[in-house]
Amino acid sequence: MPRNAKTKWTRKHLLGLEDLSAEEILTVLDVADRYLPCVTQRRPCPPALKGRTVLNLFCEDSTRTRTSFTFAAERLGAKVFQFPTDTSSLNKKETLIDTARNIEAMGLDAIVVRHPERGAPRRLAEAVQCSVLSAGDDAHEHPTQALLDMLAIRRKLGRLQGLTLALVGDVRHSRVARSNLFGLSKFANRIIFVGPPAFLDKLDVQVETATDFDAVLPECDAIMMFRVQFERHESVAFDVDEYVRGYQLTPARLARAKPGAIVLHPGPVNRGLEMTNEVCDGPQSVILFQTTCGVAVRMACLQLCIGALERERKANPDRAGKGKRG
Amino acid sequence: MPRNAKTKWTRKHLLGLEDLSAEEILTVLDVADRYLPCVTQRRPCPPALKGRTVLNLFCEDSTRTRTSFTFAAERLGAKVFQFPTDTSSLNKKETLIDTARNIEAMGLDAIVVRHPERGAPRRLAEAVQCSVLSAGDDAHEHPTQALLDMLAIRRKLGRLQGLTLALVGDVRHSRVARSNLFGLSKFANRIIFVGPPAFLDKLDVQVETATDFDAVLPECDAIMMFRVQFERHESVAFDVDEYVRGYQLTPARLARAKPGAIVLHPGPVNRGLEMTNEVCDGPQSVILFQTTCGVAVRMACLQLCIGALERERKANPDRAGKGKRG
Amino acid sequence: MPRNAKTKWTRKHLLGLEDLSAEEILTVLDVADRYLPCVTQRRPCPPALKGRTVLNLFCEDSTRTRTSFTFAAERLGAKVFQFPTDTSSLNKKETLIDTARNIEAMGLDAIVVRHPERGAPRRLAEAVQCSVLSAGDDAHEHPTQALLDMLAIRRKLGRLQGLTLALVGDVRHSRVARSNLFGLSKFANRIIFVGPPAFLDKLDVQVETATDFDAVLPECDAIMMFRVQFERHESVAFDVDEYVRGYQLTPARLARAKPGAIVLHPGPVNRGLEMTNEVCDGPQSVILFQTTCGVAVRMACLQLCIGALERERKANPDRAGKGKRG
Repeated sequence: MPRNAKTKWTRKHLLGLEDLSAEEILTVLDVADRYLPCVTQRRPCPPALKGRTVLNLFCEDSTRTRTSFTFAAERLGAKVFQFPTDTSSLNKKETLIDTARNIEAMGLDAIVVRHPERGAPRRLAEAVQCSVLSAGDDAHEHPTQALLDMLAIRRKLGRLQGLTLALVGDVRHSRVARSNLFGLSKFANRIIFVGPPAFLDKLDVQVETATDFDAVLPECDAIMMFRVQFERHESVAFDVDEYVRGYQLTPARLARAKPGAIVLHPGPVNRGLEMTNEVCDGPQSVILFQTTCGVAVRMACLQLCIGALERERKANPDRAGKGKRG
Repeated sequence: MPRNAKTKWTRKHLLGLEDLSAEEILTVLDVADRYLPCVTQRRPCPPALKGRTVLNLFCEDSTRTRTSFTFAAERLGAKVFQFPTDTSSLNKKETLIDTARNIEAMGLDAIVVRHPERGAPRRLAEAVQCSVLSAGDDAHEHPTQALLDMLAIRRKLGRLQGLTLALVGDVRHSRVARSNLFGLSKFANRIIFVGPPAFLDKLDVQVETATDFDAVLPECDAIMMFRVQFERHESVAFDVDEYVRGYQLTPARLARAKPGAIVLHPGPVNRGLEMTNEVCDGPQSVILFQTTCGVAVRMACLQLCIGALERERKANPDRAGKGKRG
Repeated sequence: MPRNAKTKWTRKHLLGLEDLSAEEILTVLDVADRYLPCVTQRRPCPPALKGRTVLNLFCEDSTRTRTSFTFAAERLGAKVFQFPTDTSSLNKKETLIDTARNIEAMGLDAIVVRHPERGAPRRLAEAVQCSVLSAGDDAHEHPTQALLDMLAIRRKLGRLQGLTLALVGDVRHSRVARSNLFGLSKFANRIIFVGPPAFLDKLDVQVETATDFDAVLPECDAIMMFRVQFERHESVAFDVDEYVRGYQLTPARLARAKPGAIVLHPGPVNRGLEMTNEVCDGPQSVILFQTTCGVAVRMACLQLCIGALERERKANPDRAGKGKRG
C-alpha cells in the first residue's frame, strides 16, 4: 500500500460517499488496485487483518454483497461472523443497537451493516466503538458498490474524470445510483439519470436527467443499467413492453454509444429486460469485472477503516479497555 | 494457564453445575481470567485448539450463545461448524444421536448442544466419544451462562463468597437461575429468588424466596434480573403494570441496594419491563461485561474439556482409532 | 500422495463415475487412503489447498454431504463459502449459471454443486472456468458417495474386485445406486439390484436384478441398503409391512450372507424399516466408517481437481487473467 495513502485516511467508519472527499475516494481506489491481483490471479494476500473480527449484520437479503464482504475480510485473514437475521434474537424485539453492542462486547473490530432504514448505519456507528461499514441502507447510499463501479470504470477506461455516464432505469429508488452520483460528481464527470418520467419524478438529488436514451447515447463513455425493482412498483402501472422499447440496452442501441463505451450493472440482471443476452455477455460488458472489483474495494475499505480504528485505540487505550475490572 | 488448574480438571463433558465441585468451578474461572484480555483488548490468543473441530448443534434458536461459543472456539484456533437445524436432515426424522454420531465420524473434538429436552446433553454425551458441552437444555441447566455470571461477579466485586444475591423475576422457568443457584451455593453465598408468587410457585430447588423486592434490596451485593418469558405465560394472567410496580429495577430502587451493588441480566433485556434504560446503561450495570466474560469462559471450558478428551485418547488409543481397518 | 497418481489425473471437474476410468477411480482411492488418518486419528493434514476457495452451492437440502465437503476442504486449508440457497438472490429469478459466474468473479477455485435437475453440474462446468464437483444431481449421479462406498469396501474387505454386492431397496430413484453401479462395474464385480418389482421396474441401467433377497444373500460379500424415499412414492401403494418382511435386514437375514459380509447404507437410516437397530449398530455395519471415508474421499477429489485446474491455469495464464485491464 502506498505510504501516503495510509496516512491520509482517518475514518473508522464508511457510511456513504456524500461526505467523502475526492482524495479519500482515490485512496480507496489506489489500495483496491493493489489488491486486484489477489482476486483475479488467486495470488496470496498479505494477512493485514489477521486476528481481526468482522460481523456481517444484514437485516435485508443480500447474498452477493454479503459474500463479497466475507471474501474480502477472509482474504485479509480476518474472521467473519454472519449474524443470522432470520433466526436471531431480533425476533425477541431486541433493537439493532442492543444486538450490535452485545456482539461488540464479545470482541469485534468492524460491523458491516445492511438495513432497510435510511441512516441506520450512522446510528449504529454512533452507538458502538468499532468500525461500521454500510452495505446499503434503504434508498440512501451503498458506498462500496459505487466505489467498485468507480474502480471498474477507472481500470477499463483508464481515467475517472471528464467522462459522460448514463445511469439508466429505476434510478429513483436506487441507493447505488445515488452513491455513484455523489462519488463520480467529485471528479468533473457529466452524469445523466435516464429513464421514463415516472422514474425521474421527485428525485431528491440535483442531477441532469433525460427521458430519451437514444439521444443521450452518442455522448456516453459508460452506461450503467439498473435493475427494475418490480417489488417497488406494485401499485404503479409499469408497462414492460414500453420500457423495453425505450430503455433496453440492445446491440443496436449500444452501437450508438462512443466507441469502447462500457456497460455496467450492479446485478443481478433481469436478462431480456434491462439488456439483452448479447449485451450482457458481450465484449463491452464489465459486469463480472465489477464483481471482481467489489472484493478488492471491500478489502481496501476494511483495511483502511480498521487501520484508523486501531490508531484511535492506541491513542485512547482507556476506551478500548472498558471491560477491565473497576 | 496455571499448571495445577490443568492437572485438576478431568471432565471431557460440561453438562451442568450441579455436579461440579467448587474447585472445578474455580479452575474454569481462573483459566477464563487469563483469556479475558484476548477478548477485551483484542490481544492475540494462543492457538490452544488449532486443528480441533467443534460442532454447534443448536436445536433451539440462540444467536448470542451460539455466537459466543463460535468466537471462543475460533479465538483458540479451532474450526467451528454450524449444524443448520432448520434445513437439516433432522427433518428426515433422524434422531439427534444419529446425527451427532454421524458428524462425529467426520472427525470431531467437541459438540456444543442446545436442546429443548431436559437431559439431552447428557444422553448425547453417553452416545458419542468426543466432548459435549451444554449450551442449555429446557429449564434445566445452562452451565456456561452461570460460569460467566460468576466470572463477572468475581471481577467486579473482587470475590465470589459471602455475597447476597437477588435473582429477580421469572426464575421458575429459568435454567440460568438454576445453574447460578447450583454454582453460587458452593461458595457460601446467600441467594434469594425474588418475584411475584406465581413465579416462585412449585420451584424444584431448595432456595430462599421473597416476594418483596424492596425489602430484600438493602442486603444485596448483586442483583440478577431475568427476562420475562411471555411465550411461557400465554395461559396465565400476567399483569405487566403490576410487575413493573413491584419488580422493575429503577434508579430509585437500585439506590436502596448496597453501595456498589452490580446489576446483571443474561439478555436480551426487555427495556422498560425488567429494568429502565437508566439502569440498563448505567454505571452499576455489568450486562455488556457479562457478554465479554462469556467468550472467555467458553474458551476456558472448551480448552479444559478438549484437553481432558485428548488425555483420554492418548490413554486409550484403540477407541480413538475405531476407524482403522478391521 | 504417490507421484504417479498425481500425474495421471487430468480432470478439473468431477461430474460422475460413468466416464471415469478404473485407473482414475484408483487414483482417488489411493489419495483418500492417505488422508484417512487425518480424519480418524485427528492427525494434522498438509494444507494442500491453503489460500484456495470453495463454494458450496447446494440447491437441495443436504446437511451431511455439505458438511462432509466443508470438513474436507477446510482440513486441507481451503476457505469454504456456503451459498445460502434459501435466502439467496436465486429468489430474484437469477439463474444458477449467473449466480455461479458472479461468485466465480470474486475469486473461486471450485464449486461443489447439488441440484435437483439432472445434468446441472455438467452445464455449470461448461459455464465456469473453475473446478466443478457434483454433490448429486436428481436421480442421475452422486460420484463422491460411490467413491466413499468403494473406499470403505476396499478397506474393510481388502479388495475391490471379484466381489458380489447386493444393492437393496429403492434403487430405481437412487443416484447413489447408479454411481456405485458405474464405479463398481469397472472392477469385475457382480452387482445385483434387489427389491420388490416396483423398485426394479423401468430401470435405465443394465444390471442383474433379483426380487428374492434371501436367495441372493448367501453369495454376498457386501450388502448396501438404500433409504426408502417415501416422498417419491406418494402416489404408489407402498406396503411397509410387506417391505419389512421381504427386505428388512435383520440379524437372522444377515447370518445368511457370507461370513464377514459388510453392511453399508448412505444414511440417514430409517431405523426399523431398512434394517433393525441390531444390524445398524452391529459389528458388520460400516455405516459410520462410510462417513469417515467420505471426508477422506472428498479431500482427495478436491485436491486432484483443483490441482488439474492449477496446471491448466499455468498453461493458459491469459484465461486466468481475464479480470486484468482490457
